Amino acid sequence: MNRTKHRTAGELAAYLGAHVEGDANLPLRGVNSPEGAGPEDLIYVDAPKHLRRAGQSAARCALVAREAQLPGKTLLRTDNPKLAFARAAAWLLAPVRVAEGLHPTAVIAASARLAAGVAVGPYAVIEESVAIGEGTQIGAFCFLGRGSRVGEACVLHPRVTLYPGVRLGKRVVVHSGAVIGSDGFGYVFAGEGYEKFPQIGGIEIDDDVEIGANATLDRGSLGSTRIGTGTKLDNLVHVAHNVTIGEHTVIAAQTGISGSCTIGRRVVLGGQVGIADHCRLEDGCIVGAQAGVPTGKTIRSGQFVWGTPARPMETFKELHGLVARLPDLFARLKKIEAGLGR
Amino acid sequence: MNRTKHRTAGELAAYLGAHVEGDANLPLRGVNSPEGAGPEDLIYVDAPKHLRRAGQSAARCALVAREAQLPGKTLLRTDNPKLAFARAAAWLLAPVRVAEGLHPTAVIAASARLAAGVAVGPYAVIEESVAIGEGTQIGAFCFLGRGSRVGEACVLHPRVTLYPGVRLGKRVVVHSGAVIGSDGFGYVFAGEGYEKFPQIGGIEIDDDVEIGANATLDRGSLGSTRIGTGTKLDNLVHVAHNVTIGEHTVIAAQTGISGSCTIGRRVVLGGQVGIADHCRLEDGCIVGAQAGVPTGKTIRSGQFVWGTPARPMETFKELHGLVARLPDLFARLKKIEAGLGR
Amino acid sequence: MNRTKHRTAGELAAYLGAHVEGDANLPLRGVNSPEGAGPEDLIYVDAPKHLRRAGQSAARCALVAREAQLPGKTLLRTDNPKLAFARAAAWLLAPVRVAEGLHPTAVIAASARLAAGVAVGPYAVIEESVAIGEGTQIGAFCFLGRGSRVGEACVLHPRVTLYPGVRLGKRVVVHSGAVIGSDGFGYVFAGEGYEKFPQIGGIEIDDDVEIGANATLDRGSLGSTRIGTGTKLDNLVHVAHNVTIGEHTVIAAQTGISGSCTIGRRVVLGGQVGIADHCRLEDGCIVGAQAGVPTGKTIRSGQFVWGTPARPMETFKELHGLVARLPDLFARLKKIEAGLGR
Repeated sequence: MNRTKHRTAGELAAYLGAHVEGDANLPLRGVNSPEGAGPEDLIYVDAPKHLRRAGQSAARCALVAREAQLPGKTLLRTDNPKLAFARAAAWLLAPVRVAEGLHPTAVIAASARLAAGVAVGPYAVIEESVAIGEGTQIGAFCFLGRGSRVGEACVLHPRVTLYPGVRLGKRVVVHSGAVIGSDGFGYVFAGEGYEKFPQIGGIEIDDDVEIGANATLDRGSLGSTRIGTGTKLDNLVHVAHNVTIGEHTVIAAQTGISGSCTIGRRVVLGGQVGIADHCRLEDGCIVGAQAGVPTGKTIRSGQFVWGTPARPMETFKELHGLVARLPDLFARLKKIEAGLGR
Repeated sequence: MNRTKHRTAGELAAYLGAHVEGDANLPLRGVNSPEGAGPEDLIYVDAPKHLRRAGQSAARCALVAREAQLPGKTLLRTDNPKLAFARAAAWLLAPVRVAEGLHPTAVIAASARLAAGVAVGPYAVIEESVAIGEGTQIGAFCFLGRGSRVGEACVLHPRVTLYPGVRLGKRVVVHSGAVIGSDGFGYVFAGEGYEKFPQIGGIEIDDDVEIGANATLDRGSLGSTRIGTGTKLDNLVHVAHNVTIGEHTVIAAQTGISGSCTIGRRVVLGGQVGIADHCRLEDGCIVGAQAGVPTGKTIRSGQFVWGTPARPMETFKELHGLVARLPDLFARLKKIEAGLGR
Repeated sequence: MNRTKHRTAGELAAYLGAHVEGDANLPLRGVNSPEGAGPEDLIYVDAPKHLRRAGQSAARCALVAREAQLPGKTLLRTDNPKLAFARAAAWLLAPVRVAEGLHPTAVIAASARLAAGVAVGPYAVIEESVAIGEGTQIGAFCFLGRGSRVGEACVLHPRVTLYPGVRLGKRVVVHSGAVIGSDGFGYVFAGEGYEKFPQIGGIEIDDDVEIGANATLDRGSLGSTRIGTGTKLDNLVHVAHNVTIGEHTVIAAQTGISGSCTIGRRVVLGGQVGIADHCRLEDGCIVGAQAGVPTGKTIRSGQFVWGTPARPMETFKELHGLVARLPDLFARLKKIEAGLGR
C-alpha cells in the first residue's frame, strides 16, 4: 500500500549515485525481501551468502556491492547496498501519513499555533500555548500538554502523550503509546512515608530522534532531561529524570536509564540493559544486552561491557568460561589433596 | 458483577463430564476462591493441601479430583479440577463486554467493513478499508489503522493501537495499551548518524492469541512478524520485527524477543527473558526468568536453560552452587600452598 | 509556568518550622536547582559539597542544614533541607491541573457519581456506576470501567485505563498510559493448548499511591491485588494478579512482580528486578537492581539481596570478587600440579 511512485532503475541510480548494469528503464515501485519481491520491487544483497536468494527472486533489479555477480538482473552497484536500499526505500515509497488536515474532532486550544501543513488526527487534544512546526503530523488520541513545542516534519503516531512543556525538535518520530515528560521517580523519605520531590523540570528531544512504542521519558526534577540529535530509542525504553543522552546513540528495547545519568554520543545499549543512577557512559561505548551498570560508574569511551555488575567484555567472557570449568577445578583440587594425604 | 446465569451443579457436571456426588440441584452462580466464595459459588481443589481451606469455605459445591475427601459439600469429581474450574467459569459467567453497539462517537471510515454483531466503543477510530469479523468488540480509544483486519469474536480492550495493515485472527484478545504493528528498530549507520531501514512488512496474529497490557509487537521490516495460534503474551512483552512465534507458546511479562528470532511451539519463556536477534528456540524448550539467549543461538527442543548467557538448567545450578563454594576453594588452595612451602 | 503564588521567606520558614537568617521579606515564587534558579527561586543544599554551587546561584534564599555556611544568602535552617525543599515546593507551586470542569466531550454514564469539584478532561470515558471522590482530576482519554471507584483528590493523568471494578483510594496519582485491572496471566494447559483461568478478582490501590507511566497492574484471578498506602511504583512496573504490596514500599522502573507474591512494608526494589511467583518479601528488605528472586522464596526483613538467583549482598559481592580471581586460581593450581609432577 505504500507504493505510489513509479520510477526507473536509472532514475534511482542517479539519485543514489549508483552504477547501473542492465536495463536503466526498468520500472520500480517498491522495495522488498528477495522472497517477497515482485518484478517491480527493488531488492538488495549485502553479503555473498544472500546472492542465491536474490538470484531466485522475482525482482528484476538489485542493489549490490561493486564485485557481486548476479546474472539476469539489472544491477545497481554501490559501496553500501544496505544503506543505499534504505535510501531507495525512502525515495520510492510514499511517506508515512498518520493524519490528514485538521480532523474536526480534534480539540485544539485557541492559543495553540499550528504552522502550515500541520495535520491532526481524530480526537487529538492540543492544549493552550502549544506550538507545532510545519508539516508535522499528530496522530489520533495524541495529547500535547500546554506549552509543549513540536518542531517541523515530526510524526507522532496515534496515542502519544506529551506532558506540558515538552520540547521536540525537527523530524522527530514518536510511536504509539510513548509518554514524554511524565514525573521523575523522586521522593524524600519522611520518617513514616515518602513525600514527592518536585518534578518540574523540562525535557528536550533534539532533531531526528525516534522513540519506540510505549517508551517512557521523564521530565527533569529540576533542570532538564535531554536526548541528542539522531538518537534512537526502541520500544518500552525508560529514561528517567535528568538523564542526558548524546547524539546518534542507539538504545534497544526495554532498557532503562536511571536518574541523572550522562550517556555520550554514538553509544550502543543492548536490550534490557539497566543503568543505575549517576552513571557516565562515554562516547562510543557499548553495553551488552541485559548488562547492569551500578550507581555512579563510568564506562570509558570505546569500552564494551557485559554482565551485572558490568565488566569489560573480554573479562566477562574469560570468567564465564572459567566458571564453566569449576567442576574440573574442584576435582583437581580434591585429587591433589588426596595425593598429599588430606 | 459477572454473575448472570443461574445453573445447577448437575447441569454443570453434565457440561464438564464430571461425576456428581451430593445435591445435583444445587444452584450455582459464580466461581471463587474458597475464602471469597458464597454459597452459590463453585470452588475447586487441585491438591490435598487445599482441602482444609475448601472444607471451611461457604461454598457448597467443589470440583475435586477422583479420590479427594471433602465431607459436607456437593462434589463434582473430575481428572483435572483446575481445568474443569476454568471451563466452568467460562460457562457460568457472562462473557466480557467492552463495547455495546456502535457508539455514536466512534469514527468509522466509510470503507470499513463491520460484520454482524460488531461492537465499537466510544472514541474508537477505524480507518479506511478495515475489516472486522462477526461479534468482535472494539473498546474505547482503540485505533485500527487503514487496512487492518480483525477476525471474529475478538476483544480489543480500550486503547489498543493497530498500525495499518495488521491482521488478527479469531478470538484474539488484546489488552489495554498494547501496540501492534509499530515500526521495527532497524537502522543503517551512515558515517555520522543512522538512517531508517524500511519497516514496511506485515504482522499476523493467529487465532486464540492473547496479548497483555502495554505489550508491543513490531511489524516486519520486509516480510512479516507472526504469532501462532493459541500463544499467550503477558503484559509489557516486546516482540521485534520479523519474529516468528509458533503455536501455544507462553511468554511471561516484560520478556523481549529481538529481530528475526524463530520461537517454536509450546515454548515457555519466563518473565524478563531476553532473546537476542536471530535466535532459534525449538519446540517445547523452556527459558527461565531473566535468562538471556545471545545472538544467533539455538535452544534445542525440550531444553531448559537459565542465566545470561543461557546455560542448561542443570549446568547453571551446578555452577551456581560451585561459585558459592569459592571461598572454601581459595582457602583449601592456600593451605596446600602453605604445606608445599610456598 | 507552575509559579503562581508569591510568598516571603519568612512565611515559608513559618510553614516549614525553619529558622530564618537574613531577609524574612524576601519574595519567593518557585524552586529550582542552584544553576537554574532566578532571584525569587528557593534552592537547597543537603551536603557541604554543594555549597559552592549554591553560593554561585542567582537564588537569594536557600534551605540549609543547621551548621551550613553560605554567606550572602538568606538562609532557612532545618534538619532535613531536602525534605523541607520538597514541602516548600508543594506549598509554593500551584498544584498540577490535568483537567478543569467537566469537558463537554467526556462521555459520562448517567449512573456515574461525581463528587464536588471533580474535573474531567476531553474524551474521557466514565462508565456506569463509577464513583469519583471530591476534587479528583481525570485527564483526557482516561477510561474508567464500570463500577470503578476513585477516591478524593486523585490525579489521573491523560490516558489511564481502569478496567471495571478497580478501586483507588485518596490522593492516588496515576501517570499516563498506566493500565490498572487488566487480566492476570493465568491459563490451564489442556493437552493441546491453553484455556484461560478466570481473571475476575479485584484490585485495590490504597491512599497516596503513585503509579508510573505505562505501568501495568493486573486484577486478581480470584481474590484481589492490593497496593498499600504510600507505595510508589515507577514507570513500566508490572504487578501480576493477586500480589499484595504493603505500605510505603518503593519499586523502581521496569520491575516485575509475579502472581501471588506478598511484598511487605517499606520494601525497596531496584529497577528491572524480577520477583517470581509466590515469593514473600518481608518488611524493609531491599532487592538490588536486576536481581531475580526465584519462585516461592522468602527474603527476610531487613535483608539486602542481589543477583539472580538473589543472594545476600555481602555474599554476592564476595563471590563476584572471587570469580574475578579465577584466572589466578587456575594458574596457582597448575603450578602446584606441575610441582607435584602431574
